Amino acid sequence: MKGIKIVTIGGGSSYTPELVEGLIKRYDELPVRELWMVDIPEGKEKLNIVGNLAKRMVKKAGVPIEIHLTLDRREALRGADFVTTQLRVGLLDARALDERIPLKYGVIGQETNGPGGLFKALRTIPVILDICKDMEELCPDAWLINFSNPAGMVTEAILRYSNIKKAVGLCNVPIGMRMGVAKLLDVSPDRVHIDFAGLNHMVFGLDVYLDGEKVTDRVIDLITSGEKSNVTMSKIVDLGWEPDFIKGLGVLPCPYHRYYFQTQKMLEEELAAAKEKGTRAEVVKKLEAELFELYKDPNLAVKPPQLEKRGGAYYSDAACNLINSIYNDKRDIQPVNVRNNGAIVGIPDDSAVEVNCVITKEGPVPISVGELPVAVNGLVQQIKSFERVACKAAVTGDYRTALVAMTINPLLPSDTIAKQILDEMLEAHKPYLPQFFQEAQFS
Amino acid sequence: MKGIKIVTIGGGSSYTPELVEGLIKRYDELPVRELWMVDIPEGKEKLNIVGNLAKRMVKKAGVPIEIHLTLDRREALRGADFVTTQLRVGLLDARALDERIPLKYGVIGQETNGPGGLFKALRTIPVILDICKDMEELCPDAWLINFSNPAGMVTEAILRYSNIKKAVGLCNVPIGMRMGVAKLLDVSPDRVHIDFAGLNHMVFGLDVYLDGEKVTDRVIDLITSGEKSNVTMSKIVDLGWEPDFIKGLGVLPCPYHRYYFQTQKMLEEELAAAKEKGTRAEVVKKLEAELFELYKDPNLAVKPPQLEKRGGAYYSDAACNLINSIYNDKRDIQPVNVRNNGAIVGIPDDSAVEVNCVITKEGPVPISVGELPVAVNGLVQQIKSFERVACKAAVTGDYRTALVAMTINPLLPSDTIAKQILDEMLEAHKPYLPQFFQEAQFS
Amino acid sequence: MKGIKIVTIGGGSSYTPELVEGLIKRYDELPVRELWMVDIPEGKEKLNIVGNLAKRMVKKAGVPIEIHLTLDRREALRGADFVTTQLRVGLLDARALDERIPLKYGVIGQETNGPGGLFKALRTIPVILDICKDMEELCPDAWLINFSNPAGMVTEAILRYSNIKKAVGLCNVPIGMRMGVAKLLDVSPDRVHIDFAGLNHMVFGLDVYLDGEKVTDRVIDLITSGEKSNVTMSKIVDLGWEPDFIKGLGVLPCPYHRYYFQTQKMLEEELAAAKEKGTRAEVVKKLEAELFELYKDPNLAVKPPQLEKRGGAYYSDAACNLINSIYNDKRDIQPVNVRNNGAIVGIPDDSAVEVNCVITKEGPVPISVGELPVAVNGLVQQIKSFERVACKAAVTGDYRTALVAMTINPLLPSDTIAKQILDEMLEAHKPYLPQFFQEAQFS
Amino acid sequence: MKGIKIVTIGGGSSYTPELVEGLIKRYDELPVRELWMVDIPEGKEKLNIVGNLAKRMVKKAGVPIEIHLTLDRREALRGADFVTTQLRVGLLDARALDERIPLKYGVIGQETNGPGGLFKALRTIPVILDICKDMEELCPDAWLINFSNPAGMVTEAILRYSNIKKAVGLCNVPIGMRMGVAKLLDVSPDRVHIDFAGLNHMVFGLDVYLDGEKVTDRVIDLITSGEKSNVTMSKIVDLGWEPDFIKGLGVLPCPYHRYYFQTQKMLEEELAAAKEKGTRAEVVKKLEAELFELYKDPNLAVKPPQLEKRGGAYYSDAACNLINSIYNDKRDIQPVNVRNNGAIVGIPDDSAVEVNCVITKEGPVPISVGELPVAVNGLVQQIKSFERVACKAAVTGDYRTALVAMTINPLLPSDTIAKQILDEMLEAHKPYLPQFFQEAQFS
Ligand SMILES: [Mn+2]
Ligand SMILES: [Mn+2]
Ligand SMILES: [Mn+2]
Ligand SMILES: [Mn+2]
Repeated sequence: MKGIKIVTIGGGSSYTPELVEGLIKRYDELPVRELWMVDIPEGKEKLNIVGNLAKRMVKKAGVPIEIHLTLDRREALRGADFVTTQLRVGLLDARALDERIPLKYGVIGQETNGPGGLFKALRTIPVILDICKDMEELCPDAWLINFSNPAGMVTEAILRYSNIKKAVGLCNVPIGMRMGVAKLLDVSPDRVHIDFAGLNHMVFGLDVYLDGEKVTDRVIDLITSGEKSNVTMSKIVDLGWEPDFIKGLGVLPCPYHRYYFQTQKMLEEELAAAKEKGTRAEVVKKLEAELFELYKDPNLAVKPPQLEKRGGAYYSDAACNLINSIYNDKRDIQPVNVRNNGAIVGIPDDSAVEVNCVITKEGPVPISVGELPVAVNGLVQQIKSFERVACKAAVTGDYRTALVAMTINPLLPSDTIAKQILDEMLEAHKPYLPQFFQEAQFS
Repeated sequence: MKGIKIVTIGGGSSYTPELVEGLIKRYDELPVRELWMVDIPEGKEKLNIVGNLAKRMVKKAGVPIEIHLTLDRREALRGADFVTTQLRVGLLDARALDERIPLKYGVIGQETNGPGGLFKALRTIPVILDICKDMEELCPDAWLINFSNPAGMVTEAILRYSNIKKAVGLCNVPIGMRMGVAKLLDVSPDRVHIDFAGLNHMVFGLDVYLDGEKVTDRVIDLITSGEKSNVTMSKIVDLGWEPDFIKGLGVLPCPYHRYYFQTQKMLEEELAAAKEKGTRAEVVKKLEAELFELYKDPNLAVKPPQLEKRGGAYYSDAACNLINSIYNDKRDIQPVNVRNNGAIVGIPDDSAVEVNCVITKEGPVPISVGELPVAVNGLVQQIKSFERVACKAAVTGDYRTALVAMTINPLLPSDTIAKQILDEMLEAHKPYLPQFFQEAQFS
Repeated sequence: MKGIKIVTIGGGSSYTPELVEGLIKRYDELPVRELWMVDIPEGKEKLNIVGNLAKRMVKKAGVPIEIHLTLDRREALRGADFVTTQLRVGLLDARALDERIPLKYGVIGQETNGPGGLFKALRTIPVILDICKDMEELCPDAWLINFSNPAGMVTEAILRYSNIKKAVGLCNVPIGMRMGVAKLLDVSPDRVHIDFAGLNHMVFGLDVYLDGEKVTDRVIDLITSGEKSNVTMSKIVDLGWEPDFIKGLGVLPCPYHRYYFQTQKMLEEELAAAKEKGTRAEVVKKLEAELFELYKDPNLAVKPPQLEKRGGAYYSDAACNLINSIYNDKRDIQPVNVRNNGAIVGIPDDSAVEVNCVITKEGPVPISVGELPVAVNGLVQQIKSFERVACKAAVTGDYRTALVAMTINPLLPSDTIAKQILDEMLEAHKPYLPQFFQEAQFS
Repeated sequence: MKGIKIVTIGGGSSYTPELVEGLIKRYDELPVRELWMVDIPEGKEKLNIVGNLAKRMVKKAGVPIEIHLTLDRREALRGADFVTTQLRVGLLDARALDERIPLKYGVIGQETNGPGGLFKALRTIPVILDICKDMEELCPDAWLINFSNPAGMVTEAILRYSNIKKAVGLCNVPIGMRMGVAKLLDVSPDRVHIDFAGLNHMVFGLDVYLDGEKVTDRVIDLITSGEKSNVTMSKIVDLGWEPDFIKGLGVLPCPYHRYYFQTQKMLEEELAAAKEKGTRAEVVKKLEAELFELYKDPNLAVKPPQLEKRGGAYYSDAACNLINSIYNDKRDIQPVNVRNNGAIVGIPDDSAVEVNCVITKEGPVPISVGELPVAVNGLVQQIKSFERVACKAAVTGDYRTALVAMTINPLLPSDTIAKQILDEMLEAHKPYLPQFFQEAQFS
């Protein structure tokens, strides 16, 4: 390999400057020759804005990374070494529907593991599987690094329904938890280690270590001692935790667990937010508009600090560290979404899990977890069931399968409401769900 | 064995005439010599009423079964062959609290798998484990046949926390489903076979057969074709099912699944019922009072037909068939609660499951199920997690463990509400929960 | 179904009169309309002899079973309800080579699980998979009941490499063990029950029951108290067992375990036999010739008693009981070879095992075994590894895979000897192993 | 911890200078304050010789490690941080019997996984479990690093029969394989990585990597291209491998696999060696005598180069790297013997395996392997069965259990020969096997 070729699908995303910054920082050990930013015609304008910023960034940094902007995915993929996918089918407007429609029925949308996440999966998975087919043909040795949500289900679908083996799902939740814990302990993050295990956005810190010593109980005391946990993400309101519950659980929850352990309070928050400041998608839409205004500035040649508010903190680190460790066979430990292969006892070997892995040139190898703690195993299994049925619905376009996925989601209060939400969402997202409306095409 | 000795703990239950009738009917192949009915001092009056009815029943039937009534459990247990437990710690008043308190917080009590069931487990499990200790000493070769709810958690606790290996948990839900299906198909029940698998009150009919031919789809069509499913129990309102959901699921749900798949509608029903006719415990209390009035009639020498309304239909058949098949090594197939031992892949080998078993003299041997259908596996796993944590709380009396059990129950909407319900219920049931108030005893 | 159609492939086998007798005996509950006996051109003469005997048998019995003799397998298969396979590729001459060649290298041939069995598998599996393809097309609802050895590997291959799901492997070893134990205990066989678990010709009686009571230790005492075990088969010499070994093991071995637990002594026996009376194949060849002489007798219209010496005792019962229980959904318990599906913990769910099953109209459903006793698990796993690699070799025709199978067989003393035996046997069986000599076909 | 306390039980071993050298080299990051060398009275002289050499070594190196020599194990253990065990119950004379007695019956002794290994386990395990009890009392936080053979069974016994959780079994076979491969590839060993998985002395290299790229096939070609494999150990004769067999297997065998895949040839080698130069124990005895002569030299203050011939190459590196990584929470990857915990699918979670682990301050955490290749799974399972039964025999002193262990060992050709060898070895090792002769003590 004389210089690495990276292809970023959904390159017009507002996150891209993060990635570019990360590649610049690591240029010495990760010599990227070409970065191809790919988008769809509807995203052309954004692609140009972000792409030009990227060009200014590499120029200012003085690294010889060629930036290519294109709407031709297949041209970009040919001979790629790494393909990152950060796409959003239907853009933020679709996400706003994912959030708004369930709320009308008194149900949290939850755009990754909830009913909103189901629809994001139904829209996204066919596109990703299409990319996989292209990769098989055009860059069969490349690694697919997926950041597109719902990252857990996307990984599950790639493992079960594509021929691509070199695929990893990536999320910034674990790294965010580590940063949050380090801050709570007032230590440098590299002194903190967490045994992550579970599913994407459903991951637990089974134990926390400071310089190798277990400090799990101390960290649990800290996150339950005030009104806020202080280990959270900017986009998820921090309601604190019932101290005796978390102490009884004995593990560190992730921010998304609030949707499942604090459903009622989160619903109230979301309803209030939807009324006042808008749903998360609507907030993000404004943030993004502001960001793109900044990006346009021809004098800007670095990642603007405002990007961090966007919610994607540490994405750059997570993604670039992963690519770097694969490329250089670093054999360090990172939490990613991969085939379980026995790491978590009780989850099928061929399902996706989010778990600490040794990152090698041949990809991430999970570290054995054994059995999950009894008290969290049930919820993890339930979300895994939901994920698997949702993937099947995404691939088959079968209405009943989609209804089963919706109904068994723990946020749904009944089969009847599940059906109402499903029907309204199917209609709303119709343009992005051809697999559910194939007969209509011929009528 | 020259004549069988059966001991029924909680012998003063209104169900006992069912059991007596069953033993009389089977006397030829199941020669019971002694039936000991045991109760606690508070239940003495009922024990006498039911016991005298039992004496009249065997006399009328002309079978030489000796009926013994006693408050001395240890005397009764000595040398027993079968011990049945059908006790209710705190009586129906406790159950009424199990149902009423959660409703105040907008949560279904569900006296077997919900928050009410948690408290029933906390009250019942220590008593059952005490009986197990007595059995180890006084009748180590006897079989323990438990009908006391929550039968799944009680079996789990016996498997994990006692030395008794010869224990089976029994429920009339599967037999009721079979009867219901037979009625729907308008055939004799012995022509219907159902592959049962899951947990107590969380059991699914994975496939249904008529004369050995699969008729699962036909039965699913029937239960989803009208406003009611017609496969239900008198005590659980029949709201029908969303046809596409059940067709997508592809398996026969049990009546208790309404609490999990139709939570919101069931909550409304329960709230309305609590306001109007009283909760189930309150209804049963009246029914029982009427029954005991009937039982007192010295001319009554058969099981009165009114008992069937009580909700325990088929208990007699289920229990007597089980005892009969063990005693006579019949090797027929019955659905019971036993150690999983690999029958359901993904549930620990040493956990209790409700599954079809071959019933032998050495006890029930489960028939292999393999993996549960993906769509139901999650819920089953979640209830199993709840059950295991609840059992641990019952044995340890640990507050935080109880809070974890309460919070992870799928009926609970948040950790905070879980804590509120837990606190109020702990206080309400204090007399029956010494394990949670041990320090208080000394203060 | 108005009358059952059974097709017997390898119908010219000397065993067929057993099957015919079994069908006649059960005619009342198992109304067979047509029995098609199929063979290959080389077997035409035998087919006619046996077929005519069969015709005389049904005539004498007065049952309206039509006997059809044909060399056209596809014609026979059309619309079949049950297909039985009892074929022997290469006939007894091939088996004689399976036994003779390894002996030259000081290795037992063992025509089912040893190096001979490997070659029997290599010859037989492609033919069986071909039959499966025909069945898919011509009688997709039929049951395939395979008696052809090596029955374990044949079942494994059908499960892994064909689309036929309705397949069962059958062996008379378990029924023979039950008969032997009954004789030792001097009781009627129907009072004896054995918990069978393991693989074909590698099955253990984990526990033995008389009238439902465990008598395992008593039976072990009996089989180890004399010079002979008295639970054996006519074709396997009965050397007795080292009493402390079997008592330590605590389970009932099958006759074939002698080859693995008494390798050296069995080798000496086989070497002596090969010198004196001939190998088993050579003995059988003479027996068969005599049998066919008997069969020719136009006055013979029943199964001749001499057939029992042939070694196939109880085959008729095993096969007809199985077909009968499937046809009539009897739900009784029989030991057969089926997909494990979790029954034996530690063996893949999708591998074949020999285990007690409930026999239903939908086929055999295994009864859960849980973990095998530690001391026997290793050997069972090793044979399963051998079987799986052998199946792969049979399907792929890959030389190295065949060498791996040969070398890991526990009877082989080294990789080098494995290669020598493999090479000589491949050459000797060349006409029946086209998959290993495909290039040669084109040269 | 201000300075580490290490206790070496069996400190008088000829290997100890290796360990001392390793500690000296790593002093900067692994600040050992005290090294206690413990031995039994029979080993006092050797202890003094080695101990004095150790003292000269640390003095010459100028590191402040205090060397303590003692026969009082309990005094030494108090407050230890690491305890290493490298003991040999019955010394080399016992090992010579382990090798000689089986050979008389035509069976390889194999002092670690064969009949010799069984007896080594029977002698060693009770002593190790005794040390565990002392550790529980005197240094409950210490790590037990066991090098005593049979290291696999010793680890299994600690996991199953002691309360010590912080225990690791160590062997130099994996590091030797890595060194051998590096030499074959003519590269520096740190560029080579091997996926180790299996059991002690039964470990396979599932894949081999050079700078992160898979080179498994290339390495297999190299080890099968000549008369010798060139990946071996000084003490095991290198007979080469049958190329097609290893290529079919597709994994790298360890030197000990020769005993199982080349049994006959190895037996011939051992018989010849026993006649000519003596068994391995006898050879080592001479080597050791020579080494101790060297050690006595008061001018010697470094590890003499002759030690490497002894067969313990890389022990120092293996042991010191392990201790170093635990102490410093290095999270690097090393192959050690630990609780499986799901790493190898199909082996019980609570059994010992030899597998790559991330080495943390809380101990080694295995990296997931998933399923072993089918072709090697059988042998691994069989040795695991042998190990588990052998451990049970060691703990219980039960004759029949020992006979079962002996008989199921793959090197044994029959139950009868197993009994003969067992009986002679029990008698020969009587002084070291009190658990088998307890009644005799009282007679
Ligand atoms: Mn994420
Ligand atoms: Mn019930
Ligand atoms: Mn057979
Ligand atoms: Mn070693």
